Amino acid sequence: MKESLGAQTMSFPLPAYLVGSYDENGKANLMTAAWGGIVCSTPPCLAVAIQPSRLTHPSIVKNKAFTVGIPNSRLAEAVDYAGLVSGRKHDKFAATGLTPVKSQLVNAPSADDGPVILECELYQSLELGSHTLFVGRIVDVKAEVGLKTDSGALDLSKVDPLIFNCGGDYRQVGPAVGQAFSIGKNLKA
Amino acid sequence: MKESLGAQTMSFPLPAYLVGSYDENGKANLMTAAWGGIVCSTPPCLAVAIQPSRLTHPSIVKNKAFTVGIPNSRLAEAVDYAGLVSGRKHDKFAATGLTPVKSQLVNAPSADDGPVILECELYQSLELGSHTLFVGRIVDVKAEVGLKTDSGALDLSKVDPLIFNCGGDYRQVGPAVGQAFSIGKNLKA
Repeated sequence: MKESLGAQTMSFPLPAYLVGSYDENGKANLMTAAWGGIVCSTPPCLAVAIQPSRLTHPSIVKNKAFTVGIPNSRLAEAVDYAGLVSGRKHDKFAATGLTPVKSQLVNAPSADDGPVILECELYQSLELGSHTLFVGRIVDVKAEVGLKTDSGALDLSKVDPLIFNCGGDYRQVGPAVGQAFSIGKNLKA
Repeated sequence: MKESLGAQTMSFPLPAYLVGSYDENGKANLMTAAWGGIVCSTPPCLAVAIQPSRLTHPSIVKNKAFTVGIPNSRLAEAVDYAGLVSGRKHDKFAATGLTPVKSQLVNAPSADDGPVILECELYQSLELGSHTLFVGRIVDVKAEVGLKTDSGALDLSKVDPLIFNCGGDYRQVGPAVGQAFSIGKNLKA
């Protein structure tokens, strides 16, 4: 039996993205974002939802670019910090010890310390209410050397991505349940 | 050191949503979607990206409503099946044994077997290329009784949400890393 929890933003799993951008003075900044995801295959796109009051909002509008870092569990403290304070008052790279790197493809920085970075050009945006949805065209994915399996995909256990639990904590990824595009074939008979 | 993987749709973690809708004949259908996420707080919104060729696409356009089921790991086989075949040729509820329930709030069905259901009214849509992004206003969240912690949040370990790994398999959620909006305070000093 189900109970009503009301109209709220609840979804599992949620990402813990580190969104990188340059502010109007060219200072590299990061913000943590759990609202967003992959939204198109052709062109490959990722969207992040950001409130206009956040420093990252005008930075993306001005530079028409951002990066999305996929942090691993070792970066949980830095990820949480980047969601607690504003880049207007703090240098988040200095405070966390993360290493800023300028993308060679788009006008945005990223933290080189994480396993995977998506470099995005602003493609479309949509005003939804409290948040603007910035849709970025993914121009490249950069991954730390040594994370690939024999098939060329990234090994999820090596990536060790951080998961944001809207119930209150950060989690690691757990055990495998079954192969995608495969285990469902049992039901086709 | 990082290597380039090219422009591709890669993000961790990804959800494994079960999107519920009625087709033009009123038949309840489900499709599996990993492209999407929460995109706004006020109003609370969740977006899913769907190709125009999929049966779910005209169903959402016609009914201006859909549900998003958060499946648990026990439903992995059904989730995978719902992404392998089309509702035009198959009754996915019958094939999987999932139980269709009509939402009392929006004109869309869901599978009652999962732990959490989001009931959504179509709020905005955006053409991105291969996919249309349907932004739904979340009008209610329904959760199985017994999943809440003492604080009223959902217990992630009890929800046991399925994670889609774009590297190839489904995963469960793993161990806790730290408390959100808390562990980063160490770096504020």
